[in-house]
Amino acid sequence: MNKEEKTLKENLIYDGKIIKLYNDDVLCPNDMKATREYIVHPGGVCILPIIGEYVLLIKQYRYAYRKELYELPAGKLEKGEAPIDAAKRELEEETGYKADNFISLGHVYPTCGYTNEVIHLFAAEVTSKGDSHPDADEFVETELIKLEDLVRMINNDGIKDAKTVIAVLKYINFIKNKDKVPNINII
Amino acid sequence: MNKEEKTLKENLIYDGKIIKLYNDDVLCPNDMKATREYIVHPGGVCILPIIGEYVLLIKQYRYAYRKELYELPAGKLEKGEAPIDAAKRELEEETGYKADNFISLGHVYPTCGYTNEVIHLFAAEVTSKGDSHPDADEFVETELIKLEDLVRMINNDGIKDAKTVIAVLKYINFIKNKDKVPNINII
Repeated sequence: MNKEEKTLKENLIYDGKIIKLYNDDVLCPNDMKATREYIVHPGGVCILPIIGEYVLLIKQYRYAYRKELYELPAGKLEKGEAPIDAAKRELEEETGYKADNFISLGHVYPTCGYTNEVIHLFAAEVTSKGDSHPDADEFVETELIKLEDLVRMINNDGIKDAKTVIAVLKYINFIKNKDKVPNINII
Repeated sequence: MNKEEKTLKENLIYDGKIIKLYNDDVLCPNDMKATREYIVHPGGVCILPIIGEYVLLIKQYRYAYRKELYELPAGKLEKGEAPIDAAKRELEEETGYKADNFISLGHVYPTCGYTNEVIHLFAAEVTSKGDSHPDADEFVETELIKLEDLVRMINNDGIKDAKTVIAVLKYINFIKNKDKVPNINII
């Protein structure tokens, strides 16, 4: 079944600091006309930083939910930037920690119904700690949590952020299957 | 550390069919003024329908990515609707399948940086198949995939949709820990 929707007209509604909002006119496969509201986003990275048995998380206030959330360090891709470079940059800027031995945990589409964002996931071993350089309007605290406790928190809804849940659970799968695919994901 | 951001002014930019876009003026904890772009969304549900060893997935064209994606059946909450009722309704409308023995797999925040959407996750046993009633501009195909193959697809980036990845991996955790927490999640 061909399900492609043809663009009849792109309608840029809002060109913001981070996101752009479109409401395009499209032609459905049954020749019905419809509209599609969606966000254009530069894409992002998310890093699972490992320190022995622990994972480095951040606590950050998320205005959309009016509360603080536990998340893995993450950030937006700069124009033309490779995901791995963004991962190294964002980890250091946001937390001050540097890492090495990055492995790819693939990429996900966080909200396919109305954004085009792609989040690239990585795990990495922390090597050193320096000063963080967050944006002027960004306030983060770091916290070390044992990997096994993180899984428990995920199962109890203590971790609600999707990219964080996925990176942790994919990393657990990666560890379990490492012998079967040695080094295949090492960058 | 108090990280709360106070709303100085709500600015509704776009009141759409499904989403609303705001760009609020806020006051940061350091008394700096900033703006916060975010989507207000009614919230959604996602259902992992089980048929023996198989899981029922849908293939749907996602305009934001200009391609078809594998996803679990999902949909938006109607006003005042309980998530479990939305899960039953959406599964039947979108696929024609009815299910029973729903279990909760918790809820997640798909894109906490710029939406307030909450997705409630469920697994359920399929009991019967009738006719589907998708929206007039919604075109979905159903496909049965073995649970173990789904996990392989997730590890190989064959499944990219975040809610689908999370529901499958949390369900696997649920099965493994069922003996430890019998019935605790049964609705």
